[in-house]
Amino acid sequence: MILTLLTDFGLSDAYVAVIKGTIAQVNPHLQVIDITHQIPPQSVALARFHLMNAYPYFPHGTVHVAVVDPGVGSARRAIAVQLESGFLVSPDNGLVSGVLSQWEAIAAVELTNSNYWRVLAPSRAFHGRDIFAPVGAHLASGVPLRELGREIDLDTIVQFPISDPRRTGQIIEGSIQAIDHFGNLITNIPGTEVEGKVWSVTIGNSIYQGKTTYADSEVGEVLALIGSHGWVEIAANQGNAQRQLRLIWGDPVSLQIQ
Amino acid sequence: MILTLLTDFGLSDAYVAVIKGTIAQVNPHLQVIDITHQIPPQSVALARFHLMNAYPYFPHGTVHVAVVDPGVGSARRAIAVQLESGFLVSPDNGLVSGVLSQWEAIAAVELTNSNYWRVLAPSRAFHGRDIFAPVGAHLASGVPLRELGREIDLDTIVQFPISDPRRTGQIIEGSIQAIDHFGNLITNIPGTEVEGKVWSVTIGNSIYQGKTTYADSEVGEVLALIGSHGWVEIAANQGNAQRQLRLIWGDPVSLQIQ
Amino acid sequence: MILTLLTDFGLSDAYVAVIKGTIAQVNPHLQVIDITHQIPPQSVALARFHLMNAYPYFPHGTVHVAVVDPGVGSARRAIAVQLESGFLVSPDNGLVSGVLSQWEAIAAVELTNSNYWRVLAPSRAFHGRDIFAPVGAHLASGVPLRELGREIDLDTIVQFPISDPRRTGQIIEGSIQAIDHFGNLITNIPGTEVEGKVWSVTIGNSIYQGKTTYADSEVGEVLALIGSHGWVEIAANQGNAQRQLRLIWGDPVSLQIQ
Repeated sequence: MILTLLTDFGLSDAYVAVIKGTIAQVNPHLQVIDITHQIPPQSVALARFHLMNAYPYFPHGTVHVAVVDPGVGSARRAIAVQLESGFLVSPDNGLVSGVLSQWEAIAAVELTNSNYWRVLAPSRAFHGRDIFAPVGAHLASGVPLRELGREIDLDTIVQFPISDPRRTGQIIEGSIQAIDHFGNLITNIPGTEVEGKVWSVTIGNSIYQGKTTYADSEVGEVLALIGSHGWVEIAANQGNAQRQLRLIWGDPVSLQIQ
Repeated sequence: MILTLLTDFGLSDAYVAVIKGTIAQVNPHLQVIDITHQIPPQSVALARFHLMNAYPYFPHGTVHVAVVDPGVGSARRAIAVQLESGFLVSPDNGLVSGVLSQWEAIAAVELTNSNYWRVLAPSRAFHGRDIFAPVGAHLASGVPLRELGREIDLDTIVQFPISDPRRTGQIIEGSIQAIDHFGNLITNIPGTEVEGKVWSVTIGNSIYQGKTTYADSEVGEVLALIGSHGWVEIAANQGNAQRQLRLIWGDPVSLQIQ
Repeated sequence: MILTLLTDFGLSDAYVAVIKGTIAQVNPHLQVIDITHQIPPQSVALARFHLMNAYPYFPHGTVHVAVVDPGVGSARRAIAVQLESGFLVSPDNGLVSGVLSQWEAIAAVELTNSNYWRVLAPSRAFHGRDIFAPVGAHLASGVPLRELGREIDLDTIVQFPISDPRRTGQIIEGSIQAIDHFGNLITNIPGTEVEGKVWSVTIGNSIYQGKTTYADSEVGEVLALIGSHGWVEIAANQGNAQRQLRLIWGDPVSLQIQ
C-alpha cells in the first residue's frame, strides 16, 4: 500500500528520515511517496492547499500522513479520517479541511489508542514520529480506522478559515491562495467559473486576458489561464509572474466575465 | 521495473507528487527514482546535461521520463525513444539529444495514442501529469514502444544547439556547460582529450594545472581535473570554484596540452 | 532490505541519482531511503550529527551509506562497520563516530576488496558512486562484512573532535552542535541531564527557562526544552530562534540546574 508524507520538516535535517525509518519499523513493505516537506514552517494554509490538490491523483486506499503542527504539545486533537478513496492522518488544525471540502468523509477518529503509537509516552515536540507516522503505517497495513481511537463527529473536524471568492453578476472577487515554484499566482477562483467563456483578470491598473494555453501568448507575457490543478492562475510565459507583479499570499484578484 | 523522473517542477509544490500518484495509478509496483526536480525553470540545456550524465548508471530497461517543457501547449511533439539499454520519454525539444549523442537510438514514436494518456483531453499546462508520466508508466510496465503512437524518423528528433569544443594543435577551446552544487565548473571538453597527458587550463590571466586528484592540491587551491562524469572540470579543493572565479554558464575555457 | 543515504551532494545535480542507479544495478530490490543530501559541503560534523540521530529509528539490519568526503582521493580509509542493529559504510573521517559513541561496534573492515566496487579503477573524485554505494548494496544484499576487505581494529576508527559539555556543580557549559530547518538551536547537552528538574539556559544577558513543551510558552517566545532527538534545545514557539538570537555553530551555552 501507498503512504504519502506532507510536512514542513524540510530536507536538510534528519526529521523526514526518522519518520520513514519509523514507518519501516512498522511495515517495511509500504511504499512511501513524498508530497512535499517544504511547506513554510507552520503554514497550515499551504499544507491544506497542496494536500487538497494532490489527493485525487493517488490510488484507492492511499494513506496521507500530513504534519504541519504549530499546536504540537497543546490540546489540539490528532485525527484520522476515512474517505471513499483514501485516508488522512493529521493534527486537527484545518490541514485536512481542503480535501474534505471536495470529497466526503465516511468516518473519523481521534488517535487515542496508544497501542499504535511508537511509544506510550510520545515526545511533546515530535508527534510526526511518535504518533502520526506509526498510526499511518498501521492504517496502510490494514488496521481498521476504528481501532485507532474513539470515533468523533465529522462536524467537529476543524475548518481552516479560507475566504471563498464572491460573485456579483459578471464579477468574481477572489484572492491569491498559493504561489508555486514557477512564480504562478494561483487564485481561489475555480476554473469551472470561466471555462469556455471570454474573461479577464484585473490587478491594480492592469488587465490580463484569460487564455487557453501558454502558447496563445508571447514569451515573457503575463497571462491568466486555468492552471493544472483547476484554479484560475496568473502566469508569465517562460517567466515568473510573482517576480513581475510582486503579489503575495492573500492579495485580492478581480475577475470579469464578458 | 525502474522509472526515473527529471523535471524543473521543484520540491516545494505538489507537482512531483501528483506525477508519482499518477504513475502509481497505472502501476503501483514500479520503482520511481528522482534524477532531479531542481532544474532551473525551463532550462532544457541543463536537463539535457544531467540526463546524459545519469543515463549510463541505470539498469537495463529503465524508463527515463524527463519533462522540462517551455513549449507545453504548443505544437512541439511528445516522444518516446528506445535505446539498447533503456527508454526516454520527453517533449521533443532537445532534452534527449545529449543521451542520443552518446548512445544509439533504435526506434522512436510520437505519443499520439491517447489510450495511454491519463485523460483523453490533457491539461494544456501539465503534460507531465497527463501524458509523459502515464506513458512512461505503461512503457515500464511492458507496453511496446510502437503501441504508444506513430513511428517517427530518428533524424527528426530535435537537437539542442550545443557548441562543441574546437581543437587547434595542442589548444582546445571549450566552454562551461554546467556548474554543480559544489561550485565545480564543468566544461564541455571530454576528459579523454587529456587523460595521461600534461595539461593546463587558462581562464583570463590565470593558469590552472591539470591534476589527477584533489589530494594533489592544497586546501582552497583552484585546480583542473577530470571530473566524475568524465568532463574536464575546474574545482577548488574543499572550496567553491564558481564563487572564487565568478564564471557563468557558457563562459569560454582554453585548455593547453603540453 | 533497507539502505539509507546521507551525503553533501545536494538535490540539484544528478549525483544522488547516479548513486541510486548504481545501487539498483547491484540489486534493484533494495529499498533506498534518503537521510539527507543537504549537508553543507564537506561538513563532517553535521553529517555525523544527523547520522547519529537517525540511526536508532531504522529497522534491524539497515545499511547506512554516508558520504561526506573532503579527503576523497587521499589516503583516508574507506570502511564498513557492523553493529548489533545495523551497518555503516563511510569514509573513515569521523562521520560514523557519533553513532559509535552511542552504540557498540562488533567488527569493522577497510573496503579493500575491489570485487565489490563498481569498477576496478574508481574515479578519484566520486567514491560515493564507485565504492561506497556498490559496497553498501552488496552488504544490504547479504554479503558478509568480512568479504568486503581486511579487518581493522575498532580503536583505529577516526573520532571526530567534539567537545563534550562540562559540568561543575549545578552548571553545565555546552555549545550549539546543530541548527535545524526551524531555526532550533540544538546544544550538545543531553536532555537526561535536566529531565524532571527545574533548569534554565543563559545566553549572553538573557535567561530562558527550561519548559516541558511549546504549549507552555507564548507564540513567539524563546524557550529551552528537551528536543525530539533528546538534546537540550533553544527554540521559539512558532518562530525561528536562530534568527532571533543570531547564534551560530559552536557558540557556548550555559545551563543552570536549580
